[in-house]
Amino acid sequence: MARNKAKKERRPRAAPPKGFRDWFGEDVLRRTEMLEKIREVYHLHGFEPLETPAVETVEALGKFLPDVDRPNEGVFAWQEEDGDWLALRYDLTAPLARVYAQFRNELPTPYRRYAMGPVWRNEKPGPGRFRQFWQCDADTVGAPSVAADAEIAAMLAEALEAVGIARGDYLIRINNRKVLNGVLEAAGLLDPDDPDAHAEARGIVLRAIDKLDRLGGEGVRALLGEGRRDESGDFTRGAGLSDEQADLVMAFTAARRRSGGETLARLGELVGRSGTGREGVAELETIATLLEGQGYGSDRILIDPSVVRGLGYYTGPVYEAELTFEITDEKGRPRQFGSVAGGGRYDDLVRRFTGQRVPATGASVGVDRLLAALGAVSGERPAATGPVVVTVMDRDRIGDYMKMVDELRRAGIRAEMYLGNPRNFGNQMKYADRRGAPIAVIQGSDEKARGVVQLKDLVLGAKIAEKASLEEWKARPAQREVLRADLVPEVRRMLAEGAGDGEG
Amino acid sequence: MARNKAKKERRPRAAPPKGFRDWFGEDVLRRTEMLEKIREVYHLHGFEPLETPAVETVEALGKFLPDVDRPNEGVFAWQEEDGDWLALRYDLTAPLARVYAQFRNELPTPYRRYAMGPVWRNEKPGPGRFRQFWQCDADTVGAPSVAADAEIAAMLAEALEAVGIARGDYLIRINNRKVLNGVLEAAGLLDPDDPDAHAEARGIVLRAIDKLDRLGGEGVRALLGEGRRDESGDFTRGAGLSDEQADLVMAFTAARRRSGGETLARLGELVGRSGTGREGVAELETIATLLEGQGYGSDRILIDPSVVRGLGYYTGPVYEAELTFEITDEKGRPRQFGSVAGGGRYDDLVRRFTGQRVPATGASVGVDRLLAALGAVSGERPAATGPVVVTVMDRDRIGDYMKMVDELRRAGIRAEMYLGNPRNFGNQMKYADRRGAPIAVIQGSDEKARGVVQLKDLVLGAKIAEKASLEEWKARPAQREVLRADLVPEVRRMLAEGAGDGEG
Repeated sequence: MARNKAKKERRPRAAPPKGFRDWFGEDVLRRTEMLEKIREVYHLHGFEPLETPAVETVEALGKFLPDVDRPNEGVFAWQEEDGDWLALRYDLTAPLARVYAQFRNELPTPYRRYAMGPVWRNEKPGPGRFRQFWQCDADTVGAPSVAADAEIAAMLAEALEAVGIARGDYLIRINNRKVLNGVLEAAGLLDPDDPDAHAEARGIVLRAIDKLDRLGGEGVRALLGEGRRDESGDFTRGAGLSDEQADLVMAFTAARRRSGGETLARLGELVGRSGTGREGVAELETIATLLEGQGYGSDRILIDPSVVRGLGYYTGPVYEAELTFEITDEKGRPRQFGSVAGGGRYDDLVRRFTGQRVPATGASVGVDRLLAALGAVSGERPAATGPVVVTVMDRDRIGDYMKMVDELRRAGIRAEMYLGNPRNFGNQMKYADRRGAPIAVIQGSDEKARGVVQLKDLVLGAKIAEKASLEEWKARPAQREVLRADLVPEVRRMLAEGAGDGEG
Repeated sequence: MARNKAKKERRPRAAPPKGFRDWFGEDVLRRTEMLEKIREVYHLHGFEPLETPAVETVEALGKFLPDVDRPNEGVFAWQEEDGDWLALRYDLTAPLARVYAQFRNELPTPYRRYAMGPVWRNEKPGPGRFRQFWQCDADTVGAPSVAADAEIAAMLAEALEAVGIARGDYLIRINNRKVLNGVLEAAGLLDPDDPDAHAEARGIVLRAIDKLDRLGGEGVRALLGEGRRDESGDFTRGAGLSDEQADLVMAFTAARRRSGGETLARLGELVGRSGTGREGVAELETIATLLEGQGYGSDRILIDPSVVRGLGYYTGPVYEAELTFEITDEKGRPRQFGSVAGGGRYDDLVRRFTGQRVPATGASVGVDRLLAALGAVSGERPAATGPVVVTVMDRDRIGDYMKMVDELRRAGIRAEMYLGNPRNFGNQMKYADRRGAPIAVIQGSDEKARGVVQLKDLVLGAKIAEKASLEEWKARPAQREVLRADLVPEVRRMLAEGAGDGEG
């Protein structure tokens, strides 16, 4: 009896964890292609690749995610048996700071690196919002000059164009945290002699401005004051600014004028006598001059004080790449595509490790968002070409069929033999159809005896594939009988003539 | 007083967690190149890419790692707030089984996919042994025919040659778990009517044979019997086989003969009347015939009963790709490089989810080991070419220097301006040297006035770079003065002439 113990084990659920997804076939290839084009741009600009592990110690990562009041602080973390807390990286910048601190004596200074890979956020998943997503970063560490910032902003423009975003369909917007800090000084919310005072209110101000696109001026204004109740009835506490203070901050976000020069002049007024603010305006001026000198007009890169970026660690220029064309959202309403990349200067990240300030600046491309944007721009891509499928008519002759496959592959033609159960020929054709096979190769005993094979153009026949009998298949006009010895040249000819494009 | 609270925060340690490492520059590029070549082979053979998330539920991953008695069972796992246990994937096969079970109605059958990415094992790290490493897999799910196994074995050979392993430097060895099971039946260690009996002893036998390369025949024999004490004094409990039983198992591992046919005949003797064993021998025969028909001789692929693979989930043919050339180990002793890829048939993995048996077979390439092997074969690679570095002689003219960089980049020449502190010219040259820059561009106020730039071949000058003054640099013969207007064509000419190869 013990022998047949009725162990009724529960079956595991065939699903990824909540908020995670799989990427199939064409989607993986499209991302690989896109990243390859970005890689070329980064390489041309002198950056070197770096790959850090997915796992870091919690202390090395630090706490820099926006909304850090969230439970678990937004990261996937666990404790090892030896007591160490480990976590999945939430971006590619924190690991870079760790690497530079660790290897600063061996690395060149400035250290210019790019990195591509997934990052993880332990956030509430939502539609189109996943807990693992790809980033693609480039950073220059150890460069105090804002020429480094200008370069990254320009490189973002080049990267977007390289992947297929047309000029006019994107805009790189640049601002400077120092200017914002100057405005906060002018508003009495930042005291250079006591930088910790009002820190919480400033954090709320920062995150509020970052939501300008989504909430509009009124929503941001509410968050600067007492707070804001959203449509669902949830209340978000505000920064508690006086009307005067809030006016000044709102004036800052609306300081963009028709030309960069006018915007800079307006910012100069708003920062008043703040030294930090003036420094920030001067930096923006330098960046604008450099970019103009390289031919980046305001149709591509412009100064826009409404950009602040949500992350707490930026200390100087910040930039954001936005796609300006409209798409239709899930409810059929037109809306702007929005941000696909961003970054800025973070002069303090390495100091956490070494105690020494290291100037650094860089940007991150949201790979999955940019891919989605490309899909929206380019529309449906032509279906990828699947392999030529050699069907199995006689299961004792799989050696013959594999030889055909082998010959095709050696000629560089993507090919495979049908490896499922060959009994039902319709299933073989259905398979070839599912795979987007351009051609099916058929050799039954009759063809074998006559030394020929049938080559079937599958695109023409796809629609009746599921029901057709072998005889119907053979009768279709898009089928050719060729000598077995001519298999490779005939397949090649059909592919060149456009089998798979419906023109074969 | 509260204002200047003396918060003495402990600085985080600038290091990755134990057993994790970073990959820099050239190493990342080499891996990317190698994977691109393997990807082409997989694509040619008709496989499609799949990318699953790094994180799966613990129940979906299952427990298939060898030596599952280890604490934490070899995976990095943690519990979410909602109670779910999540873990980092330890291979790419378990996620594939989950994907196929989840999407089996939408995917073509057979489903042929490749996957490339890191996997994580929570093992004790050691020299050259890391807790995150790359795998590169190809699998056919839903294919009962051993033609699918033969194809994977042949594809491994093609992949190895594609990345640069010469014919003769590798061997694909094939065996069949069914043959081993037949031998275990013959030895009275497996009862088809009571498959659970002796399961533990069989597990020990499997892992013992898998260590044949490392422990030799004597060590394996000890593990089949009472157990084995290693050099450190640690004792590993054995399977407790009788001498007769152990003899049979050892005879199995030593059944390889000069030709495939002779090996098969010997295996036929050893499995006796076991039905499973005979089936296994017949499958190996079919595989051998198919591969021979495609021209894979025993110099590339052969049947070798000493291959069993450590993982518990294999149910049929197993294969292993081994590099046969000798390398010198860290102690200067010659040794064979060993296994770089392996796989086999696992017909039960999907059943865990669906209750239905789905035949599947596939292989995994150990990317990091193969990369190391390529390094050993090809020796030192020529140093990669860094960017042309435009130096900063006059910090008020960075606009001019960035324009030079911009012109070079637009001509497709990798270039950058020195972005560190420009005060010390020696540092700029040291930087260019560190980066492997082929050329430095120099324009001080004198050159500016005359409308020229200096182009310095840095490979010739590298050795004195650290000490040279600007004057010494300019005096070097490998320096040319060219018109500013000719910057791009002159740099291009120098690169074509071999600047960076020491011949410029």
